[in-house]
Amino acid sequence: MSIDVLQEKIRSMKNPVMVGLDPYLPILPRHIVRDALEEHGQTPRGAAAAYTRFCTELLDALRGVVPAVKLQSACFEALGADGIAAMQTLSRYATDQGFYVLIDSMRGDVGSVAEIYAQAMFGTVPIGSTAHRLYSCNALTVNGYLGSDGVRPFLPYCKHDEKSIFLLLKTSNKSSREVQDLLSGDRVIYTAMADLAMRWSEGLFGRNGYSQIGAVVGATYPQTLRLLREKYDRLFFLVPGYGAQGGTARNVQGAFDRFGHGAIITASRSIICAWQSSGSDGRDYCAHAVAAAEKMKQDLAEYVTVL
Amino acid sequence: MSIDVLQEKIRSMKNPVMVGLDPYLPILPRHIVRDALEEHGQTPRGAAAAYTRFCTELLDALRGVVPAVKLQSACFEALGADGIAAMQTLSRYATDQGFYVLIDSMRGDVGSVAEIYAQAMFGTVPIGSTAHRLYSCNALTVNGYLGSDGVRPFLPYCKHDEKSIFLLLKTSNKSSREVQDLLSGDRVIYTAMADLAMRWSEGLFGRNGYSQIGAVVGATYPQTLRLLREKYDRLFFLVPGYGAQGGTARNVQGAFDRFGHGAIITASRSIICAWQSSGSDGRDYCAHAVAAAEKMKQDLAEYVTVL
Repeated sequence: MSIDVLQEKIRSMKNPVMVGLDPYLPILPRHIVRDALEEHGQTPRGAAAAYTRFCTELLDALRGVVPAVKLQSACFEALGADGIAAMQTLSRYATDQGFYVLIDSMRGDVGSVAEIYAQAMFGTVPIGSTAHRLYSCNALTVNGYLGSDGVRPFLPYCKHDEKSIFLLLKTSNKSSREVQDLLSGDRVIYTAMADLAMRWSEGLFGRNGYSQIGAVVGATYPQTLRLLREKYDRLFFLVPGYGAQGGTARNVQGAFDRFGHGAIITASRSIICAWQSSGSDGRDYCAHAVAAAEKMKQDLAEYVTVL
Repeated sequence: MSIDVLQEKIRSMKNPVMVGLDPYLPILPRHIVRDALEEHGQTPRGAAAAYTRFCTELLDALRGVVPAVKLQSACFEALGADGIAAMQTLSRYATDQGFYVLIDSMRGDVGSVAEIYAQAMFGTVPIGSTAHRLYSCNALTVNGYLGSDGVRPFLPYCKHDEKSIFLLLKTSNKSSREVQDLLSGDRVIYTAMADLAMRWSEGLFGRNGYSQIGAVVGATYPQTLRLLREKYDRLFFLVPGYGAQGGTARNVQGAFDRFGHGAIITASRSIICAWQSSGSDGRDYCAHAVAAAEKMKQDLAEYVTVL
């Protein structure tokens, strides 16, 4: 199952790090933007070409360094069709390079709409008598506020097609408490969501014991991470909020089980923008990204040993 | 403000109906699919051409019949870049034809990602020294599970640029109770979300008294609609679940205030697929859609008088 694939990739590299690719023109090295806009004009196509080069070069550099990457769907949607074309290309490229690929779209649709979306992201789209694979990813993030109707359309792909979803439980942002921490009986909303994740997980556990339905829990709430790890020992955690948002290696220690399994830590800006704090002009952004990713691996290794 | 624009359009047509455009190849009339795939091949471009023709012809037919339309983002994303190009084109076309346009993407991102998305959907995207307007819409649906951090990036556009957001409160699907109806103190989660909507609404009330932050409440929960209407008399309701999902005119009566204001009822499949239950071959799908929309207006008028 997909969650076994992820755990195996982490184990073989002894590295539970997922790098987030969330391109945006103002954060890209100047030479990449200049070259792309010179070739394609000051157009969405030009901007998308800059995103594609930036992310492709990062993928080439990070191959063999980290096991997994995450594409931030909203960043690509924000460039319209050209952005989505870039995301499709990059999702296939990252898969071909051997990365575990998550598309971070945090969708929460229902019924037939969710079915259509799940099919496009995880399967193939039938057009006439031909089937088109438009995206290529191992996993998606899903917002469960709508309940089972929003999640069930993804489950056949989790069961039969080596795909996973990560359900938003406790997100890394400050205001996540406003809804997620509301108390309901003896639970808070994010544990109610975890209980739903366990209910939906029936028949979806991998060889390693973890469910194909993972959970998003922020690095910025270390105590919550630890408590959730203890209580939900079969939910694999996707942990955002490391680095730029303030989460540290020590903060995420509690996300892992005693084998150093069951969690992957994501970082975006602290890796892909590492060149900015170096005084560099950005031409060596890949080297800075690799160094930052390796530093993150080392920092984590002080608190977690992946067996 | 945008919410005044919507109310005025409804008033001038005495019609609180929003037609949902959620195209999908299997539901399109056969001649439209055939023509498009003959011209462009069995490709995403061919499918997107079919979506564009289908929706454009519907918009032409529904102009002057209904005040508002909704584009279902996931349906277009499911065709990749070609689908998004179609959504961009259709959002501009619907705006040019005078419709109030909602893009139904149910997003829930945070921080810089939500800012990038809000700017692209509601504003212009700067590329070099030029600004590109990629989408054209009056409103978006937003999932508030992440709290203020996911909503605040949209608020400057609500305040200064005639835009609105509709926050998911109580959705029309059966399993919406699993999370949304959980009891927390003397509230359920959807009223907690409504309280947040009111908090975020400061300074965002239109001439008609309604907030730029509206609320999604399903037609399938008539008692809830009525109670929410009484308690939250300044939240404009977007009401899905009419028709195909089982909501009736009587069910949605309670969504309106005593002037017949404060709500718009959406219907998708029951309008755009009306030709299917007629035994027609689909060539007259626009006439069936218009007839179904007019029937829906009449049915609503039995229970609601828009003053």
